[in-house]
Amino acid sequence: MKDSDPDKHKWFSDHISPDLTALHRIKETIYSGRSKFQSVDIINTAGFGVCLVLDGKIQSSEADEFIYHEALVQPAMLTHPQPERVFIAGGGEGATLREVLAHKTVKKAVMVDIDEEVVNLCRRFLPAWHRNAFDDPRAEIHFADARKYLEQSSDRFDVIIIDLVDPLEQGPARLLYTREFYEIVKQKLGRTGIMSVQAEPAEWKNSDNFTAIASTLKKVFRIARPYRVHVPAFLGLWGFVTASQSLDPTKVAPEEVDARISSRVSKRLKSYDGLTHQGMFTIPKHIRQQLAANKRIITDKEPISAY
Amino acid sequence: MKDSDPDKHKWFSDHISPDLTALHRIKETIYSGRSKFQSVDIINTAGFGVCLVLDGKIQSSEADEFIYHEALVQPAMLTHPQPERVFIAGGGEGATLREVLAHKTVKKAVMVDIDEEVVNLCRRFLPAWHRNAFDDPRAEIHFADARKYLEQSSDRFDVIIIDLVDPLEQGPARLLYTREFYEIVKQKLGRTGIMSVQAEPAEWKNSDNFTAIASTLKKVFRIARPYRVHVPAFLGLWGFVTASQSLDPTKVAPEEVDARISSRVSKRLKSYDGLTHQGMFTIPKHIRQQLAANKRIITDKEPISAY
Amino acid sequence: MKDSDPDKHKWFSDHISPDLTALHRIKETIYSGRSKFQSVDIINTAGFGVCLVLDGKIQSSEADEFIYHEALVQPAMLTHPQPERVFIAGGGEGATLREVLAHKTVKKAVMVDIDEEVVNLCRRFLPAWHRNAFDDPRAEIHFADARKYLEQSSDRFDVIIIDLVDPLEQGPARLLYTREFYEIVKQKLGRTGIMSVQAEPAEWKNSDNFTAIASTLKKVFRIARPYRVHVPAFLGLWGFVTASQSLDPTKVAPEEVDARISSRVSKRLKSYDGLTHQGMFTIPKHIRQQLAANKRIITDKEPISAY
Amino acid sequence: MKDSDPDKHKWFSDHISPDLTALHRIKETIYSGRSKFQSVDIINTAGFGVCLVLDGKIQSSEADEFIYHEALVQPAMLTHPQPERVFIAGGGEGATLREVLAHKTVKKAVMVDIDEEVVNLCRRFLPAWHRNAFDDPRAEIHFADARKYLEQSSDRFDVIIIDLVDPLEQGPARLLYTREFYEIVKQKLGRTGIMSVQAEPAEWKNSDNFTAIASTLKKVFRIARPYRVHVPAFLGLWGFVTASQSLDPTKVAPEEVDARISSRVSKRLKSYDGLTHQGMFTIPKHIRQQLAANKRIITDKEPISAY
Repeated sequence: MKDSDPDKHKWFSDHISPDLTALHRIKETIYSGRSKFQSVDIINTAGFGVCLVLDGKIQSSEADEFIYHEALVQPAMLTHPQPERVFIAGGGEGATLREVLAHKTVKKAVMVDIDEEVVNLCRRFLPAWHRNAFDDPRAEIHFADARKYLEQSSDRFDVIIIDLVDPLEQGPARLLYTREFYEIVKQKLGRTGIMSVQAEPAEWKNSDNFTAIASTLKKVFRIARPYRVHVPAFLGLWGFVTASQSLDPTKVAPEEVDARISSRVSKRLKSYDGLTHQGMFTIPKHIRQQLAANKRIITDKEPISAY
Repeated sequence: MKDSDPDKHKWFSDHISPDLTALHRIKETIYSGRSKFQSVDIINTAGFGVCLVLDGKIQSSEADEFIYHEALVQPAMLTHPQPERVFIAGGGEGATLREVLAHKTVKKAVMVDIDEEVVNLCRRFLPAWHRNAFDDPRAEIHFADARKYLEQSSDRFDVIIIDLVDPLEQGPARLLYTREFYEIVKQKLGRTGIMSVQAEPAEWKNSDNFTAIASTLKKVFRIARPYRVHVPAFLGLWGFVTASQSLDPTKVAPEEVDARISSRVSKRLKSYDGLTHQGMFTIPKHIRQQLAANKRIITDKEPISAY
Repeated sequence: MKDSDPDKHKWFSDHISPDLTALHRIKETIYSGRSKFQSVDIINTAGFGVCLVLDGKIQSSEADEFIYHEALVQPAMLTHPQPERVFIAGGGEGATLREVLAHKTVKKAVMVDIDEEVVNLCRRFLPAWHRNAFDDPRAEIHFADARKYLEQSSDRFDVIIIDLVDPLEQGPARLLYTREFYEIVKQKLGRTGIMSVQAEPAEWKNSDNFTAIASTLKKVFRIARPYRVHVPAFLGLWGFVTASQSLDPTKVAPEEVDARISSRVSKRLKSYDGLTHQGMFTIPKHIRQQLAANKRIITDKEPISAY
Repeated sequence: MKDSDPDKHKWFSDHISPDLTALHRIKETIYSGRSKFQSVDIINTAGFGVCLVLDGKIQSSEADEFIYHEALVQPAMLTHPQPERVFIAGGGEGATLREVLAHKTVKKAVMVDIDEEVVNLCRRFLPAWHRNAFDDPRAEIHFADARKYLEQSSDRFDVIIIDLVDPLEQGPARLLYTREFYEIVKQKLGRTGIMSVQAEPAEWKNSDNFTAIASTLKKVFRIARPYRVHVPAFLGLWGFVTASQSLDPTKVAPEEVDARISSRVSKRLKSYDGLTHQGMFTIPKHIRQQLAANKRIITDKEPISAY
């Protein structure tokens, strides 16, 4: 069989909204099945290379996962003066863990993902994501509900990274986007820790979940800072929020970000540096107004949901 | 991993014309690659079960291949009084061979397909098609260009079945739909043999290739009889033509068809019987007029091509 | 503005089943709106010319409405020895009326369609369908529910043609596919009349409604005869059934059909003649078996529904 | 006819690349035709409201045209100390003109668009875009090739805004993205003027045209500043570049931007202000590297082209 596949007949349909569908050309379906919690596809798309797809949603792509994972992890890690103990909720691909372990200061990284099958598939099929981070002696992997785990644990953490699937109505992550969960996180961080969370699409006409997460975190923490990066495979801008009782990434100057990267990070970052840091937290007027306008507090009783 | 796959995100696009595309939901991609001659996909669709797809075109589906293969093989076989030696051009799935070998009269069936890789994939992945016909001692399989093979062979055949892929511009079957090829076939059949050929879509607004093949065969043979069956996975009516110097399927009465099936066929036919036979050769007026109007003779110099 | 439109960016999606969608290229949207009963689109497709679309389903196309309308009307009309009084339930485009009025024997044709807006749109935009049949002095048009109209009428009819939209769950035609409705029809036909009905897709893997309508009519009438034609714009075979206490189209020989067309029909038929008649009623074995197997009687309490 | 249209059957396909297609649901096709230069569609989409589509590409949408047009016009206008004479190349919708005329300093705005039919359609169907800007006494509209017009004109301008369709291979704008054209622009601006240009997609994996335009402008002008904003209807980040012999928008502080808006702009800006200004010019590391790496100079002989 020849190497190239000129076939243009298989497509992955990403239903962005009832009114908008994107069709990604599939070069190869590497894996397709269902875990105990969700449907799982690993497909090689013509546009973005290999993609992990859970419940029909692209989680990350070979082409641009670095943009997403550096954005999720680095602002919180570099805002903290000395992150030693890190907790990751979710993070199945292992790339969040990879970004955390690139920090020389880290002594222990606890990752809790509910879906062991997905993590095993990622270990097998996505080596470019995890780069063997799972085998780092500082890494500790548990398969459990991250909220329950955190609630029952007596550990404290310097940084908590929340890297979960969308809050689908029947999905496993719905109650990990609520005020109640963030209260638990706050308790584990104490006065000196910082969290960051992937916070759904953050675009004009599609920012309700992003602004509600930011609003909820502002209620729970003294400081909450929304930010955004563009992830091509998601066909748009993705939101994140850091939250802390004391730490504020917007107070760290670009030069200081660059200096901390130099001294603390053991690998080359491809997207994140001082200027990138400054740009992500600089939000245009029409989105700032949406952030100011959305007062919603997400609770266990009234959780958000993604399309 | 659970059994069922509720995922609705992978689609196979069948480009029927520049103005019409069908999207078939994919449950599973069983195989995807390229042989020396064509792209090959074996996909499990939600609508038609497992399908063999060559160069982006569905060749046959688990759900309805019996309609296609019985229609291709049985009229010629049952019109012949005593088919002992049968030649198959193409027929990669092995289902044409299966239909031929169901005839107790058959002593030898020679199948010549250009694409060994496709035949091997069919043997492996499509057992419901071939039902081990490849292992029948009466079967003889060659991997070669069927036209060249036939030209160089000194054998004579009672029945020749032509079961080729569409005449794509760059495809391997283009020169097996021409007057020159049919002249070779005629010579191998002699006065008493009969051929049948899959002859492309046979619908109002999409019958040019069907009527041209019928017209060409009428030029080469004394008797040429176009017929049609509905194959759901092809989303329409498919054309066939029998041709012979002496044998005419429309002269075989339904009761005689049923009697010959009884005495000569060793398995149950699911679609074909006397009435089915009568129906397939009864073509409605508007298509009869198209058959009468198309005088085109397909030649090596001016071959037809499929979209 | 130039004449030709090379644009390939607008598509009509015909959701044939949850697992199969067809995309027809739109050249022009002629009309788009909602009547009191259904959504209405009149679009010019690249593949089939102008199409009437109700509730997202193609009702008929410029390219092949003649196949559908001749098949719906002519078998019943020509089986009847002297059709003078004809009733049409539905038939908004006016093409069913056109086929009825082509019969010189007809003295009165009563058409009852529920949707006046649709009929007016068809009069305006689909002149090639109705050919001014609405203005024929023998035609009488009422806007009402055809079942209620027939129930309250004291008229008797020689032929009743039922040309309704699909039985959609919320659609206006649901209770016009039931035993109770057919009993009313039988009463209006008496011993000597005949009805015909469009009876949904009639394909292998998609024949449940067709076979249930046939089964129900067999229960109500002494004679019920299912038949099928291929309508390209519907991407498949369409079913019909005639029913009568005394008249049987399969007993009319092809030559007799041709003779009756000659003496009774005042226009050229493009698809229907004696041979076409014979072909449509000749159903292949696998569909005959489905017809025999489906014993369902459709009732007002348990109506059928279309996807 | 009812107001709402629940129909989900008409789609606009935006072919973003050979490997990615977006389907936008169409609520209504307002206009569809061809001008002398390009195909023209005005469609009401469910996701982004009314959209102007030229040669199959969305030019701007009701939902977010303000993001695009403020970004195209305001940085150059507000970086200039006193813009009185402004030239617009293209700008058919009239929204670019609207943004220019919102500046109290402007005495004359010359807009040159090649396509009179498109401009007339926009005047008629897109009042929310132009807001009668065409009727402002300071506006002067010409229908001509903007390059030829500028070449033959002896006028000088303070600001030149280049708002053209994509450089399609057969399209009208191909030679308005070249070094030769930018040399003409430079001459008309003199030492103290500034230009801005819409510069195609500006995303990781899709930035070749953006970085080539920036590279070409850097060659022609002393100062060239690329920037980006997110336009949801384009499903991504859109690039722009300002260029000048003396003026540098990145040297204008956010507070100064806000002050200039206050004193010089007669309407409320929805997206643009000091912080938005700072954010747009702050480009992340991976895109900065692509800008640095692309040394291509676009010329009349070797123009760029869009998919």
